[in-house]
Amino acid sequence: MYKLTLLRHGESEWNKKNLFTGWTDVPLSENGIQEAIKAGQRLKENGFQFDLAFVSYLKRSLHTLWLTLDVLNQLWIPWEKSWKLNERHYGALQGLNKKEMAEKYGDDQVHLWRRGYSTKPPLLDNNDKRFPGNQRMYNALKKDELPLGESLEDTVKRFLPYWNNSIVPEINKGKQIIISAHGNSLRALVKHLESISDEDISSVEIPTGRPLIYELNENLEAENKYYL
Amino acid sequence: MYKLTLLRHGESEWNKKNLFTGWTDVPLSENGIQEAIKAGQRLKENGFQFDLAFVSYLKRSLHTLWLTLDVLNQLWIPWEKSWKLNERHYGALQGLNKKEMAEKYGDDQVHLWRRGYSTKPPLLDNNDKRFPGNQRMYNALKKDELPLGESLEDTVKRFLPYWNNSIVPEINKGKQIIISAHGNSLRALVKHLESISDEDISSVEIPTGRPLIYELNENLEAENKYYL
Repeated sequence: MYKLTLLRHGESEWNKKNLFTGWTDVPLSENGIQEAIKAGQRLKENGFQFDLAFVSYLKRSLHTLWLTLDVLNQLWIPWEKSWKLNERHYGALQGLNKKEMAEKYGDDQVHLWRRGYSTKPPLLDNNDKRFPGNQRMYNALKKDELPLGESLEDTVKRFLPYWNNSIVPEINKGKQIIISAHGNSLRALVKHLESISDEDISSVEIPTGRPLIYELNENLEAENKYYL
Repeated sequence: MYKLTLLRHGESEWNKKNLFTGWTDVPLSENGIQEAIKAGQRLKENGFQFDLAFVSYLKRSLHTLWLTLDVLNQLWIPWEKSWKLNERHYGALQGLNKKEMAEKYGDDQVHLWRRGYSTKPPLLDNNDKRFPGNQRMYNALKKDELPLGESLEDTVKRFLPYWNNSIVPEINKGKQIIISAHGNSLRALVKHLESISDEDISSVEIPTGRPLIYELNENLEAENKYYL
């Protein structure tokens, strides 16, 4: 039986402002900082000792992991940082206000963008400064590897190979692992671990800043889960 | 011509208290936190963009690197964490007050322990809780790899192979690198880059929290250095 800890980053400045965030690199809010510290305290009370962390490139998940591991006195463990753990890329919706979008396009369209498994947002032009191919953080990567906008299905498709190739081998070595990531990249993982259908995954909500513990069998299927 | 950035951690709680620190994992003082933020601001003003960081296992250098890169918006770069960058291990002197030591053993002996290139401190027993072999942080390592106490020479001997095997290949790839470490592990590097003698290295002081930039020729010898 393996144990795996997932952590969705605490509230960000843009969650508070109700903006489509995606890959926009916004910081945690003061509330988000407190959530991350509390996550560390809960893990500490429960005696968690990690060997390895996986984390996205975005500062809200990096800060969440940092604050959590600082409470645990475990900042020294190796971190693997990967854009494959980034939030779903919201394309041309990034930076727009959810309420304004609903007034302009209608609630149904916005709901579809947010919850339709295969529905892509309006895509970016590849000269848009919001396209990761135009940002230094991603300049070691090929431009055609990087998204102009993603459906949840697209997020699953770029996340799962990383799970299989980079995370699974470490779990199989018996390492205690924490993954600090985002609502939709974690949804991709939860969908896989629990074999949730394309239709049902959209209604799965993972709360911010609460450690989510999975107990996995030898095939790395979820046997049990609980929040701390 | 290569450029390399060294950063000695900001003031720690124990620097303030005048205690032999070594591998004791103490946090930065408020002053040390401010030094690290200032280091980030200086690097930002000078347009530094890093690809890769090397850092010790100790939280004072981890926090210094974190605060510095946070100002630069470069937390996403990979960090290689290694105990080989740790401070010199001060053996049985760790945790003792420098003034009390001088009263007990005499100024000359304490000076020798602090500045004699080959002088080892009194060594720990391997059942002492200060021995890294008894600490979780180091439990992936073999006990006989870990020090019971080190002279500066010992620190050089464990640091240089790491420099040659892990850092040099990355510099040769043209990567922009920052190393966040400690007074004596950085002394080991400065000694090597500038070919400083065993005798002279003890009087080289590297200030806390100031980025030290080396310009290196193709043989990775220092051509020029300056502080930001």
